[in-house]
Amino acid sequence: MSSANSNGAPVRPRSSVLRPLGQEEIRVTGGFWGGKQRTNAEATLGHCEYWMERIGWTGNFDRAAAGTIGGDHAGIEFVDSEIYKLLEAMAWELGRNRTEDLEQRYLALVARVAAAQEQDGYLHTSFGRRGQPPRYSNLEFGHELYCFGHLIQAAVARLRTGHDDTLAQVARRLADHLWVEFGPDGRNAVCGHPEIEMSLAELSRATGELRYLELARLFVERRGTGTLRPAAFAPEYFQDDIPVRDATTMRGHAVRALYLASGALDVAVDTADLGLAEAVQTQWTNAVARRTYITGGVGSHHQDEAYGDDYELPADRAYSETCAGIASVMLSWRLLLHTGDEKYADLIERTLLNNVLASPREDGQAFYYTNTLHQRTPGSVPDEHELSHRAESSLRAPWFEVSCCPTNVARTLASINLYFATATGTGIQLHQYGDYEIHTTLDDGELALHVGTDYPHGGRITVTIDTAPTTPVTIGLRIPAWARNPRIVSGHAATERGRLLEVTGIFHPGEAIRLELSLEPRIVFPDPRIDASRGTFAIERGPLVLAVESIDLPTGWSVNEITADASTIAAGPDGTSIDVYRLAEPETDWPYRTSAGVAEAGHVRARMIPYYAWANRGPATMRTWLPIHPRSEEQDA
Amino acid sequence: MSSANSNGAPVRPRSSVLRPLGQEEIRVTGGFWGGKQRTNAEATLGHCEYWMERIGWTGNFDRAAAGTIGGDHAGIEFVDSEIYKLLEAMAWELGRNRTEDLEQRYLALVARVAAAQEQDGYLHTSFGRRGQPPRYSNLEFGHELYCFGHLIQAAVARLRTGHDDTLAQVARRLADHLWVEFGPDGRNAVCGHPEIEMSLAELSRATGELRYLELARLFVERRGTGTLRPAAFAPEYFQDDIPVRDATTMRGHAVRALYLASGALDVAVDTADLGLAEAVQTQWTNAVARRTYITGGVGSHHQDEAYGDDYELPADRAYSETCAGIASVMLSWRLLLHTGDEKYADLIERTLLNNVLASPREDGQAFYYTNTLHQRTPGSVPDEHELSHRAESSLRAPWFEVSCCPTNVARTLASINLYFATATGTGIQLHQYGDYEIHTTLDDGELALHVGTDYPHGGRITVTIDTAPTTPVTIGLRIPAWARNPRIVSGHAATERGRLLEVTGIFHPGEAIRLELSLEPRIVFPDPRIDASRGTFAIERGPLVLAVESIDLPTGWSVNEITADASTIAAGPDGTSIDVYRLAEPETDWPYRTSAGVAEAGHVRARMIPYYAWANRGPATMRTWLPIHPRSEEQDA
Repeated sequence: MSSANSNGAPVRPRSSVLRPLGQEEIRVTGGFWGGKQRTNAEATLGHCEYWMERIGWTGNFDRAAAGTIGGDHAGIEFVDSEIYKLLEAMAWELGRNRTEDLEQRYLALVARVAAAQEQDGYLHTSFGRRGQPPRYSNLEFGHELYCFGHLIQAAVARLRTGHDDTLAQVARRLADHLWVEFGPDGRNAVCGHPEIEMSLAELSRATGELRYLELARLFVERRGTGTLRPAAFAPEYFQDDIPVRDATTMRGHAVRALYLASGALDVAVDTADLGLAEAVQTQWTNAVARRTYITGGVGSHHQDEAYGDDYELPADRAYSETCAGIASVMLSWRLLLHTGDEKYADLIERTLLNNVLASPREDGQAFYYTNTLHQRTPGSVPDEHELSHRAESSLRAPWFEVSCCPTNVARTLASINLYFATATGTGIQLHQYGDYEIHTTLDDGELALHVGTDYPHGGRITVTIDTAPTTPVTIGLRIPAWARNPRIVSGHAATERGRLLEVTGIFHPGEAIRLELSLEPRIVFPDPRIDASRGTFAIERGPLVLAVESIDLPTGWSVNEITADASTIAAGPDGTSIDVYRLAEPETDWPYRTSAGVAEAGHVRARMIPYYAWANRGPATMRTWLPIHPRSEEQDA
Repeated sequence: MSSANSNGAPVRPRSSVLRPLGQEEIRVTGGFWGGKQRTNAEATLGHCEYWMERIGWTGNFDRAAAGTIGGDHAGIEFVDSEIYKLLEAMAWELGRNRTEDLEQRYLALVARVAAAQEQDGYLHTSFGRRGQPPRYSNLEFGHELYCFGHLIQAAVARLRTGHDDTLAQVARRLADHLWVEFGPDGRNAVCGHPEIEMSLAELSRATGELRYLELARLFVERRGTGTLRPAAFAPEYFQDDIPVRDATTMRGHAVRALYLASGALDVAVDTADLGLAEAVQTQWTNAVARRTYITGGVGSHHQDEAYGDDYELPADRAYSETCAGIASVMLSWRLLLHTGDEKYADLIERTLLNNVLASPREDGQAFYYTNTLHQRTPGSVPDEHELSHRAESSLRAPWFEVSCCPTNVARTLASINLYFATATGTGIQLHQYGDYEIHTTLDDGELALHVGTDYPHGGRITVTIDTAPTTPVTIGLRIPAWARNPRIVSGHAATERGRLLEVTGIFHPGEAIRLELSLEPRIVFPDPRIDASRGTFAIERGPLVLAVESIDLPTGWSVNEITADASTIAAGPDGTSIDVYRLAEPETDWPYRTSAGVAEAGHVRARMIPYYAWANRGPATMRTWLPIHPRSEEQDA
């Protein structure tokens, strides 16, 4: 166990096996992730500000403060949360790379939010004022506490980046109000959408106020006791069917399920409730084994944005919401800190690179809400000036009627470096690879190093020591689960601890550790219980899931009519490519036949691209799971 | 072309290639369909009456008439339509087998409906009265004209069974009101849910009033011009994206799509608009070839109850709504009358036996709203005293919050005999097989015959002549598309006209025609473009799609973990059975692997049952598409 001596991480348990690093301890210096953080700072933050100002979501606070909002609220009832996620993103960005311009924009926005807080601490633009539904009158779908949770998370980000200023005060007053309303002497109720749990646990960590932790614990314990009235969906939708500690897998609305599990783990860790922590681990294990897409995405149902049954993982109807991917990262990160098990870092890598990063367009100004694994129609180009629906068959959209994903991407990318590495008293652990530098303090002194790599497109990682204690230090490098025959070059002994390769020794400035991972494309088959992908394979290369996009096929071909020969997969200087065959048009007007035989109409060598990068070249069809061409099977046999 | 000289068919075009028979011309005498019609009459009709009285849907009319309903309307806004579909079912049942008891129940219910009609003909219990939304204030989702359409269809059923009484008067007044509101001088608008189109066309046919046909034509022509404001779904949802005559396939909400197409065909036929008729035929052809389940069911999305993209046909997420199956039968029947092409009768057979009949429980007192082709969890037993949601994972439910399916099943089964055969001036055409008798008049005199069969469970059909003209008559028998080597035994020459086998001659009373169809089980493969069923096969036997239900597997097995050896399928005296293998539990915590190999954990000989009969023995898992066991492939090669 190491003590938490850093300031700035998004999650800071009272105790943990691994210690998160703060915004001042780890900095991306460029490369793959540097580009993502720059686009996020320079394009996405302003994009979110622009849209929410334009469509009145920010203005809701001004009109609430002025007492003029009444029933004339802009947007659905939980758009406050988007402002808060933007504030959280800005706070992390300011901690990472402060500019005067951003600081002023941030403070101005905080001031508008703060002005809308009521005397007793309550702060919501959709409820409780004249002409609005009463406070807490629709806990099932009103999202009040969900919004509060995001406000609190934004305040925690500001606290963790060194500023105990306005938003922290607003959050404390709000949390104190919640203690009265929902605490031990308040109503026995929960919010339909979890989020408040982890935010209160974190606010407790950031402020030392134990009532907030106790309130988080109450919300977790009350869940699953049937306090919510189901409407269109069954109680499972909001995880109110069974208590958290009794559930054995993820179910219902995916974002709700994962936010709840994150909050439950925070409570479990800080209250030493190991039974609860174990329940969350079991849910993670079972959901990962049976309810997770190869991209790390989760959510198999459009209807209720929910997990499906075990092995119900349709590629073409994958909901795989961006926010659910982010929530999965949040949970896995907590479990990594709690256990030190690199399997959680493996899933973080997979989910970040193949689900979360698929959401933003290259320019950071349009987003996918859902992330299908098989696009059957080329879809349309959304109007850049209109709100989109969440699951339209189209390219990425600038903004949505329910727009949780863009701001969630923004806060995640602004703090993405904080998920890359951890420390213990005697060493550090590198969980994710990129170009970044670390400067932290171990038990025996200062450790500084930088990491350089062409990852995820290449497999060479170099860790160079800048400063080190004069006593032995352990530098751990995650060997990804997919890696075959990794090669480590170091002047010190390396030992394996699970999937962590630990190099221990006395390091000198300039000294380097090199890790080489083979990026040969890998053929991956789905479990035969996954009906939706039977008879197909996917290609992974390094940490990336690849896809075929129709833009890389001859004109007039769609991905719906192809098979591919797995044995021909090859990576060259121009990328990865594969032999693809086109099915002939069917000869009958009925798609069920007495013969399984299929005529072909040509074949071609097709380029494969990283899945996350698809749909950046105009409307196209796309698929990750490729139907097996009969030739592959002959060669297998 | 033959003239329409019969009274009682559900559809009676002004002209058609085939003439529908009326309720007085064709009568089911027993056997398979006799049982279904008896259960419908004795159990389902009363069940529907009981539920709608109990939960206040019928009472809405009383309170509307009394002026006391206000905002206190029971059920969602379109429950009036359920009363109307029940009235239609009762009317057909009275035409089929009048009892004094049913007649009194029918007249009493009609009186309560009629009392709620307003001075100007408007009749709805959810709109326009004090405390309610204004009339026509929510054409997108209010379903006002949808309800009117069902009222009119109920009136047409009464007219067609020989009674021009109260409901016909109510319907005329309502239609006259619609002419004022939506006619050439009225508003340029349509209802979000099509239904009014075919009902007005039919009312025009039944009354001779051409304004009703003209109004139906206006509604069809206005569709696709963007008069509806899309909300949660895109305009395609209610087929308002492109005009009917420009559309090339079925899309959007499946029931809406098929009701619209039925109305459009009625209009096209009665206005000699052959371009419009051809557009509907094209839509049928493309949707059947690419968007239809093997059961005939349609609708691949739960979210919007909609058609999916081409070949998007998930078995486990099949929505395949009962009402959509019924709508498909209604459309195919119209196309059969219009063209005489037996392919439409083939789809009617498939859809009735494998989709519509899967809805009612054996006792006719519980129903499936959706009809999945793969049930992954055993689900639950719904409370017999509570309303269910439409798509819960459970056994059939007694009633639903949106309860369109039970009453739709009731009206379909009460008139099912009317879809079995047609006539021309010189003969009759037997499209569906069962135990029934026909008594009609051809150009040269009376023709009476009866049909006896063990169909659909057996393949012998005997047509016995009871009375015939003294001139040659042609008796046509549909040879189902699935039939191999059908054998016909008759004393007269038989010629094939498409899939209709025509026996022509001078028939004598007592003379018989025998048709023998082989009921050997058939292995059926999906088109390779259907991703959801790749690597599987289905078994059909005669007109029935078969299924494996976990009740017929060893205890503890679910259908989610099996493969089957197609080469072992066999029909014996105890039914059809097949070798089924169980997959071993996976060895890893991640369901995507570098090897496609699968370990097995036992095999068994498993019974297969007709799909429509599943879920009558308690909670179970079930599947129609069976994953191919490797042994099948070896033997194929």
